[in-house]
Amino acid sequence: MLDPADKRRMLTRLKRIEGQVAAVRRMVDEDSYCVDVLVQIAAARGALGKAGTVLLGAHVEHCVRDAFERGDAEERQAKVDELMDVFARYAGVAR
Amino acid sequence: MLDPADKRRMLTRLKRIEGQVAAVRRMVDEDSYCVDVLVQIAAARGALGKAGTVLLGAHVEHCVRDAFERGDAEERQAKVDELMDVFARYAGVAR
Amino acid sequence: MLDPADKRRMLTRLKRIEGQVAAVRRMVDEDSYCVDVLVQIAAARGALGKAGTVLLGAHVEHCVRDAFERGDAEERQAKVDELMDVFARYAGVAR
Amino acid sequence: MLDPADKRRMLTRLKRIEGQVAAVRRMVDEDSYCVDVLVQIAAARGALGKAGTVLLGAHVEHCVRDAFERGDAEERQAKVDELMDVFARYAGVAR
Repeated sequence: MLDPADKRRMLTRLKRIEGQVAAVRRMVDEDSYCVDVLVQIAAARGALGKAGTVLLGAHVEHCVRDAFERGDAEERQAKVDELMDVFARYAGVAR
Repeated sequence: MLDPADKRRMLTRLKRIEGQVAAVRRMVDEDSYCVDVLVQIAAARGALGKAGTVLLGAHVEHCVRDAFERGDAEERQAKVDELMDVFARYAGVAR
Repeated sequence: MLDPADKRRMLTRLKRIEGQVAAVRRMVDEDSYCVDVLVQIAAARGALGKAGTVLLGAHVEHCVRDAFERGDAEERQAKVDELMDVFARYAGVAR
Repeated sequence: MLDPADKRRMLTRLKRIEGQVAAVRRMVDEDSYCVDVLVQIAAARGALGKAGTVLLGAHVEHCVRDAFERGDAEERQAKVDELMDVFARYAGVAR
């Protein structure tokens, strides 16, 4: 899925997001102002969305491409359906 | 991009969304309760997200597949970059 | 809910969004490139989100404020619950 | 902002989300299928959105209410502006 360099970068990215969520937790624990906490939660959500975007790129480049080059009609359709489902989840669309 | 049957369905879907937005406008004009208007705006946004999901499916099935089957490395990369950009727009991710 | 000037601006805003959705429909009808259509659909969604944000501001300023100044505990709680429901709808959170 | 019971629940909720992000990181490390990872990232985003919704409710109930009951016009306007900014961030609307 991810080549070694992309995988290393993705792991770093996710580690950083864990740190963002831990920082949000500390803010709540220290009774920080709600709006500051809400802004940091939105930032962590944004970072997860960015991680998802990068991973989606790798997925299309590798897995979807493989299915299109080597797969049969059924496998290709399965990849398209999966992508639509993932897209809908991130776009906040009910399925 | 869209085969004739899918295109006809997409046109109907978009016509219906225009009607939803027009209905929201009438609600504002008639001083409807804000929360009712906000819920209908959210419904129209959801319907646009659904239209986007369907169109994305057709796009991957036709355009992306063509690029993967017939295009060179540059065209394939262009399709992946476009998909990531579109995904980020719908996921509300800053680019 | 909206004072006359804000109402007029909101009606203009919604009329413009109807135009954006109609333009998307024409793009589909003319077989425009899917990604261009997807970008315009995302723009219309963004415009609806912006309209929702403006309306929410007016709602809090007038209706929520009224409930907080004049309402009893039940009315205040109803306003808070409504706001959370609306927020969740726009944030794409399952309720 | 949060009363003691709500604060305890929020801390537990955020701790769980840290665990979700850590689990996503392990999935990437073990080369799990991209789509499975994308679905779990979407779930963590959804959980953050839910946490934001709950916190927003508490914010309106306490801070906004205080400003409306005791604050002057400037403070009330500041609360409305903050709420619109937060709403736009979660709705993925450019400001």
